[in-house]
Amino acid sequence: MSRSETVELMNLCMLRRGSQVLVQDRRDPNWPGVAFPGGHVEKGESFTDAVIREVQEETGLTISSPHLCGIKDWHEDGVRHVVLLYRAEQFTGTLRSSDEGEVWWAKLADLPSLDIASSDMLDLLRVFEEDDLGEFFYRQNGRDWTYELK
Amino acid sequence: MSRSETVELMNLCMLRRGSQVLVQDRRDPNWPGVAFPGGHVEKGESFTDAVIREVQEETGLTISSPHLCGIKDWHEDGVRHVVLLYRAEQFTGTLRSSDEGEVWWAKLADLPSLDIASSDMLDLLRVFEEDDLGEFFYRQNGRDWTYELK
Repeated sequence: MSRSETVELMNLCMLRRGSQVLVQDRRDPNWPGVAFPGGHVEKGESFTDAVIREVQEETGLTISSPHLCGIKDWHEDGVRHVVLLYRAEQFTGTLRSSDEGEVWWAKLADLPSLDIASSDMLDLLRVFEEDDLGEFFYRQNGRDWTYELK
Repeated sequence: MSRSETVELMNLCMLRRGSQVLVQDRRDPNWPGVAFPGGHVEKGESFTDAVIREVQEETGLTISSPHLCGIKDWHEDGVRHVVLLYRAEQFTGTLRSSDEGEVWWAKLADLPSLDIASSDMLDLLRVFEEDDLGEFFYRQNGRDWTYELK
């Protein structure tokens, strides 16, 4: 019996430099606003390679030793959407923005005052930061979505 | 454009009690031998709920705050196989074996002397234990498989 399902695999990376984090003002009209760099995992690509590649493409920086700290996931139209959440502190290279949006170092404490892409971003930060949390799970109840931190 | 792929989602949990870990002597003829408890993530189920359920079914113990520490993955016949790797130290309940195999507390240091299910298990332990490692990625080169720790 097949136990497989259809999954969209993505990643987000919180790159830290002291009290700052690297943010991106996304130009994507479907998901505009400030977020962490990240994107899709390609077919056949390792998860670690994918997050290193996405950060490199969007910021010019090459991270090393990204640390998997949790997963955000939800189900919609028969597809499980999975965002692997990484933290990183080591990098080389020179910061530059890409077509996907301007990138800059922001104070972590200032994130609430920015035009963040997702209204859930501040709770999502808890999964990035708190070792006791490993999942941000969205559940659909009729037409409403609710989420649980696990 | 669809960015989704076909994925088989599973989990493995290293449950620790001091210097001991909970192991299971798997009866599955396809994958016999000593391993950690774990199994498949059901469609629609959260990843955290899945690992708690699998450990409960196979050991009688109810874990809390499972910590995601890495991923083992490989591609075969167009399917990405993903095993989420968890550590846990908190649990309630009474240990009991299931139809899937006998479970008992083994010394972590004794694992190399047991009839372990996977020849890669000792390297996989590094991903469970070392914070700098987050992925155990198998790659197929012709008829051979090699793996990288990332």
